[in-house]
Amino acid sequence: MTAKLTEKAVRLIEGKNFAHLATLMPDGSPHVSPMWLDREGDFIMMNTAQGRVKCRNVLRDPRVAISINDQKDPYDRVIITGRVVEVTTEGARDHISRLSRKYTGTSFQLIPGQVRVILRIEPERVID
Amino acid sequence: MTAKLTEKAVRLIEGKNFAHLATLMPDGSPHVSPMWLDREGDFIMMNTAQGRVKCRNVLRDPRVAISINDQKDPYDRVIITGRVVEVTTEGARDHISRLSRKYTGTSFQLIPGQVRVILRIEPERVID
Repeated sequence: MTAKLTEKAVRLIEGKNFAHLATLMPDGSPHVSPMWLDREGDFIMMNTAQGRVKCRNVLRDPRVAISINDQKDPYDRVIITGRVVEVTTEGARDHISRLSRKYTGTSFQLIPGQVRVILRIEPERVID
Repeated sequence: MTAKLTEKAVRLIEGKNFAHLATLMPDGSPHVSPMWLDREGDFIMMNTAQGRVKCRNVLRDPRVAISINDQKDPYDRVIITGRVVEVTTEGARDHISRLSRKYTGTSFQLIPGQVRVILRIEPERVID
């Protein structure tokens, strides 16, 4: 079921563009939040903190939907559905630093006690 | 359960900012898409076409989540959860024209045969 990222999806992910990540609450209702992202091959990589709603959501139900728009042209966009196949602390501090440099140009100010996690997302459908 | 829109939510809705609307697919997985929006008092008003996935989704399950970001400052944002309390064709052509003028400065090119519908969304929670 894994889908390859299209050329347009890769361009939008590699640009300084935000994603909107939709996840599922315990009662099955939707949740949505803006996210930084990059990729490893065809996997989409996001970063959050342990205990956050979206993190708890994907641990319970890994199904997600993602919308990525060009920051300068919101009509240039891609929609991806898939699932979170890994939630890991390994490399997560380096990853949030890389994302911070990509999006803000500066290093990420880690909050004491906060545990960062990577969400690795396998795309199942890519709609250009 | 109805929540009032906060001052910030009103400012973001009245600006030329996009919303990301998360809805639920028949299998309960999330769907997300970028949307134009305005408001009527505390109700959020969006516009889509009959037969579209998001339209079928909200007719089946009215629960939605909405993220609205300032187009110029994506860190300035609000998240709203609620439900679609009305799906109507009444006034929907005028509404899409108003939205088109707001977002593009030009009138909307109606597609022959396409039936526009308004989604009236009642906020239940507004997270600034």
